[in-house]
Amino acid sequence: MAGCACGFVRAVLAFLLAPALVTLLVAPARGRGGRGHGDWDAAELLPPLPPRENAALVARFVTNVCDWGALATISTQEGVRGRPFADVLSLSDGPPGKGSGVPYFYLSPLQQSVGNLQENPYATLTMSLAETNFCRKYGFDPQSPLCAHIILSGTVIKVSETEMDVAKNSLFIRHPEMKTWPSSHNWFFAKLNITNIWVLDYFGGPKIVTPADYYNATSQRRGPGQ
Amino acid sequence: MAGCACGFVRAVLAFLLAPALVTLLVAPARGRGGRGHGDWDAAELLPPLPPRENAALVARFVTNVCDWGALATISTQEGVRGRPFADVLSLSDGPPGKGSGVPYFYLSPLQQSVGNLQENPYATLTMSLAETNFCRKYGFDPQSPLCAHIILSGTVIKVSETEMDVAKNSLFIRHPEMKTWPSSHNWFFAKLNITNIWVLDYFGGPKIVTPADYYNATSQRRGPGQ
Repeated sequence: MAGCACGFVRAVLAFLLAPALVTLLVAPARGRGGRGHGDWDAAELLPPLPPRENAALVARFVTNVCDWGALATISTQEGVRGRPFADVLSLSDGPPGKGSGVPYFYLSPLQQSVGNLQENPYATLTMSLAETNFCRKYGFDPQSPLCAHIILSGTVIKVSETEMDVAKNSLFIRHPEMKTWPSSHNWFFAKLNITNIWVLDYFGGPKIVTPADYYNATSQRRGPGQ
Repeated sequence: MAGCACGFVRAVLAFLLAPALVTLLVAPARGRGGRGHGDWDAAELLPPLPPRENAALVARFVTNVCDWGALATISTQEGVRGRPFADVLSLSDGPPGKGSGVPYFYLSPLQQSVGNLQENPYATLTMSLAETNFCRKYGFDPQSPLCAHIILSGTVIKVSETEMDVAKNSLFIRHPEMKTWPSSHNWFFAKLNITNIWVLDYFGGPKIVTPADYYNATSQRRGPGQ
């Protein structure tokens, strides 16, 4: 009977450990510099979308969960001068769940977009939940308003001395790789000074949100019925 | 002894089934209309990146794996007329692994970007591997050139009669939801007629690719040493 019990215990341990061992074997590498770097790599960590009728809150949500966006500028490049240009930039408005709403960038004069901005600082930034697992999880097409995206127009300006630390902390916690980028590229902190906001999060066309409502939006101020 | 064996068998079955049951419980819903819709939802299905020195091939790869992008246009909207505007659009150049390189769109005159294009058809489309699992898997920051992105400039034009079927098939296989979009929105097929291509896939700045090299790129024509 004792022999039977030992064999049983070994079998139980084997079955308990096997799934764990298999999981360790097949789990993908979690990149981006390791734990605690403040990013929502894992889709399970994404908080719920605010009520869609609170467009200002949805806009703040999208800005905070996204860590990159596409920026439109007016091209200064040969052959395409004056035409609209689009590029991808990393950004951050702060740590996950603690965003200020201000999109900060880490830019170099070597970038095409920055060359454009030096002549014409007007720009429009767009960010979409398609950048996260949200739309895939719910089966929303990237162009469906249910796969919420926002459009922020304004000007891109260098960050002032007083704002430098906030910009740096916001960016480096979400983009630790930036700390290693070569100083020969003359990186500087910039932000989008927002003048116009459109939110596409439901059917019926874009909702206009004022910068004031955008910056004042907090999760305590929910829409009707919340 | 028989009683001991039965209890053992039950315990074994329980341990075999438990991980499977837990997995079923926690597995996220695979959205986008079910299986076989021709999308690379699962990161494991993403094919390897072509050699980075073959910028044309990399550009074709990015266009094919992405199913949305950001389009820059010149704004015609009140208050921001003449300024650059950016928006998110779904797109497709064909089924996964069988793309033509032509980015097709499914547009409505109700969209802000389309209102802009009607006055000025110049546009720039940008797509990034940050839209897939690629950059996260390798720990590449979205703004790092290693997280390859491309910039395609040109004009957005309606698709001709002869090209209608190709556009429709390309789009609907990747975006089955489009088949349900309301006809009251007057959807039409469009494409980007590409005149300029920039590929940012490695350090050293953007690589210029001609449309001819872009459309002629096939996986049989690899870079040196491949």
